[in-house]
Amino acid sequence: MDGQALTPPRRPWTLRSVRPDARRSPGAGAPAAHPFSWLSHASAARARAGLTRRVTPRAATEHVLDLAGNDYLGLLRHPRVTEAAEAAIRRWGTGAGGSRLVTGDTELHHELERELADHLGTESALVFSSGYTANLAMVTALTAPFPQAGPAASAPLLVCDRHNHASLIDATRLARAAGARVALFEHADPVSAARALEGRADDRAARTLVVSDTVFSVDGDLTDLGALHRAARAAGGALLLDDAHGLGVIGPGGRGALSAAGLLPAPDDVVVSVTLSKALAAQGGAVAGPARVVRHLVETARTFIFDTGLAPASAAAALAALRVLRAEPERAEAVRAHARRLHDELSERGCEVTAPDAAVVSVTAPSPEAAVRWRAACLRAGVRVGCFRPPSVPDGRSRLRLTARATLTEAEVRRAVDVIVAHLPG
Amino acid sequence: MDGQALTPPRRPWTLRSVRPDARRSPGAGAPAAHPFSWLSHASAARARAGLTRRVTPRAATEHVLDLAGNDYLGLLRHPRVTEAAEAAIRRWGTGAGGSRLVTGDTELHHELERELADHLGTESALVFSSGYTANLAMVTALTAPFPQAGPAASAPLLVCDRHNHASLIDATRLARAAGARVALFEHADPVSAARALEGRADDRAARTLVVSDTVFSVDGDLTDLGALHRAARAAGGALLLDDAHGLGVIGPGGRGALSAAGLLPAPDDVVVSVTLSKALAAQGGAVAGPARVVRHLVETARTFIFDTGLAPASAAAALAALRVLRAEPERAEAVRAHARRLHDELSERGCEVTAPDAAVVSVTAPSPEAAVRWRAACLRAGVRVGCFRPPSVPDGRSRLRLTARATLTEAEVRRAVDVIVAHLPG
Repeated sequence: MDGQALTPPRRPWTLRSVRPDARRSPGAGAPAAHPFSWLSHASAARARAGLTRRVTPRAATEHVLDLAGNDYLGLLRHPRVTEAAEAAIRRWGTGAGGSRLVTGDTELHHELERELADHLGTESALVFSSGYTANLAMVTALTAPFPQAGPAASAPLLVCDRHNHASLIDATRLARAAGARVALFEHADPVSAARALEGRADDRAARTLVVSDTVFSVDGDLTDLGALHRAARAAGGALLLDDAHGLGVIGPGGRGALSAAGLLPAPDDVVVSVTLSKALAAQGGAVAGPARVVRHLVETARTFIFDTGLAPASAAAALAALRVLRAEPERAEAVRAHARRLHDELSERGCEVTAPDAAVVSVTAPSPEAAVRWRAACLRAGVRVGCFRPPSVPDGRSRLRLTARATLTEAEVRRAVDVIVAHLPG
Repeated sequence: MDGQALTPPRRPWTLRSVRPDARRSPGAGAPAAHPFSWLSHASAARARAGLTRRVTPRAATEHVLDLAGNDYLGLLRHPRVTEAAEAAIRRWGTGAGGSRLVTGDTELHHELERELADHLGTESALVFSSGYTANLAMVTALTAPFPQAGPAASAPLLVCDRHNHASLIDATRLARAAGARVALFEHADPVSAARALEGRADDRAARTLVVSDTVFSVDGDLTDLGALHRAARAAGGALLLDDAHGLGVIGPGGRGALSAAGLLPAPDDVVVSVTLSKALAAQGGAVAGPARVVRHLVETARTFIFDTGLAPASAAAALAALRVLRAEPERAEAVRAHARRLHDELSERGCEVTAPDAAVVSVTAPSPEAAVRWRAACLRAGVRVGCFRPPSVPDGRSRLRLTARATLTEAEVRRAVDVIVAHLPG
C-alpha cells in the first residue's frame, strides 16, 4: 500500500526564505542557514495539507476496543504464545547475538522455518527480522546481477502491481538501481499483467518476475493469484507474492493465499513472503518457496547477511501462534466472518465500505482532516480504528481502516459499528 | 561493511546452457527452462570460488566459547535483562500489533527512546524494528524530495565513506533512485571527504549529508568523527553516522562514538543510528538526533510508517541492558581491554591483526577457503569465531573476525588465543 510512485518526483529541495550558501561562507555577513532548517518548512507544509502524523503511545492498561491492529487471530496475549516467548528468553537469551550466518542462528529459527514451510505448502522457508527486510531480500536477491551472465543478456524484468506495499516498491527500486527493468500493471488486473509480459516477449534471456501483494493492506482486496500465476508461467517467469495479510486469515485453515487459490503444494515457480507480526502475533517476516530459492537468499540476500537474526522470543511466539492456528483452524474462519459482518452492517447504515476478502475493512472518508477527526472521535468513544491518508494510500483517498479479529464478540462488533456510524462525518 | 560497489555491475543474467525462451513457447518442441534454474548455476559458481554460505543452527545447550557474536556487554542472559523482557511480554503481549502510527506504539517504546536519547546526548530518538531499517529511514527521509522545492534547486548530495555498512549503501542507493547525487570518499579519510565536499561548493541550494559508520564492522576501526564533522559543517552540511559498533563500547560509560569524539551533547547537525541488537542484547535499531529530525522520520520514513513496531520484549530488553550499562559503566572499559589483549597476544604469536578501536579484532586469512577451514578448526576446538569473506568485505581480503565481550575471563582470552594460533593456516 503506497501512494508514492515507483519513481519519486525529482524535485530537489530549496527554499527561497533561507540562504544555505550563507552558512558555507560565514564571512559573507549573512546569517548561516542550518542544514535541517528545511524540516520545519516541510512539517508546516504537511500540517497545512492535513497530513501531520504523530506517535501516540498507548498504556498497557487502556480499555479500548481495538479494530486497528493486525493481531488477526487474537494471539498477542494467548497464554501458549506468551509462555513460549518467555521460555525462549530463558533458553536462548534476549537476542540472537549476531547475523544468522555468524552466531545468530539457532535450532529455534530452523524449527519455525520447517513448520512455516509445511503450513504454507512450500519446500522451504527463511525467517527475517521484519517483513520489510524479507521483501527487500526476496526481490533484490532474485534480480541481482549474476556474474556468469553474458554481455548480451537482457536485464531482469519485474512486472509489478501498481498498488504493491511500500516494502515491495522499495525492493523494486533497489532492483532497478542494480540493473533490473520494471513494468507496472493495473491494480489486481491479471489481464494488464499479461499485457505487460507479452510486450516483453522478445526478451528471451531475461529473468522475469511478477510481483504482487496477495491481500492488499489498504482495502483488503485479494488479487486473482491463479490468473496471475498463469500469466507469469506463460511468459516463462516466476511469481513473487507478499501474503502478509493472507497468512492465518484466508484459505482452508488459514494457510494463506496460495491455498485459497488452490495452489497447494506451492508451485515450484512461486515464492511467497509472510509476516510474523500480524496473524502470528510476533515480529519478523519470512520468505517461503523452493529450497534453491531459500539457499540463494541465505547466500546472497543483503538484508539476511547484514542483519541480526530474529530475536528468539519473536521466533518462539510466531511458532506457538502457528501451532495454535493449526490446532484451532476455526480462528481463520472467525476473522473473515467478523470482517463480513462489519462490512454488511456499516454498508446498511450508510458508510461507503469495501467488500472484505480477508480481515481488512476500508471505510471511505471525505478528506484527510475528516478521517483524522473521525478516528479521534471513535477513540474518545472507546473504539480504536486505523486512519490511512496520503501518501500511505495508492489512490489519494483517505479512509478509516478496520481490522477484524478472531476473538471479537458479537457485542463488540455491534459496539464498533454504532460508534463509527455515530461519528460519520457530515 | 560491504564489498559491493554502490553501483553494482549491470550484467544481467543469461546462461548458454539453458534456453529460457523454450519455456515461453512450449509448442516449439524444446524442453522448458525453469525460471529458477539459474540459481543452481549461481550456487555452483559460488562453490567454485569458495564462497558458499550455510546457516548452521546452534543448540541452546552448546558449550562453546563465543568470540563471534556482538553481545559486547555480555547481557543476552543477564537476569535483569531477561526478566524485563519476560515482564514486557506479560504486560504488553508478544508483538506490537501494528505500525507505531496505527496501534503499535506503547509507553515502553517512548521510555526506551527517552533513555537512549539521554545516553547518547541527543535531543530525541526513534526506535525501529532493526538497525537495517533504521539506516534506510535515516538516509532516505533526509534526502526525500521536498514538495515545496523550486525547480531550479540542486539535488541532495550524499558524501559517503567507501566502506559503509550494507544498510547505509542500500539506503544511499534508494536515495539516489529518488534523485540524490552521491560522492564517495576514501575509507576513514576526512581529507578525502572534505575534497568531495569542496568539489560541490557551487551547489549552494543542495542538502548536503556526510554519511559514515563510526566503528567499521569488519576491521573495527574508528573514523575521525571530529574531523568529519568539521568538514561537513564547513560545507553547510550535516553528518549522519551509524554507531552500531560504538554504542556501549567506546566513549566514557559506553556512550558511543559521539562522546568518544567529544561531541557531547550531540551537535544539532548530527544524526546517529544505533542498534539494539549488539551491546543492548535485544533486536532493533534507533535513530537519535535533533527533535525535528525525529519528527520528520515519524512523518515520512517508509521503514517506520510501513513496518510493525518493535516487539515489546525487545524494547524492554534493550532498555534494561542500557540501564545495566549505566549502572556498571566499567563493562564498556572491559570490552575494550579484552579486545586489546586479544590483539596483543595474537600479534605476538604471529597473526596479522588489526589494532582494535572498539570490540572487533580482525585477523587476516590467506584465502576464503583457508578462512573457512580456520574457523571450522577453531569451532571443533570449542571456540567460535566469525569468518568474513567476499562479498561481505570491502577489500576482497578474507579474515577471521573476533569480538571481545565484557564478561570474558583472562583464562578464556588465553584459551581463544591458543586455539586460534594452533590452527593458523600454513
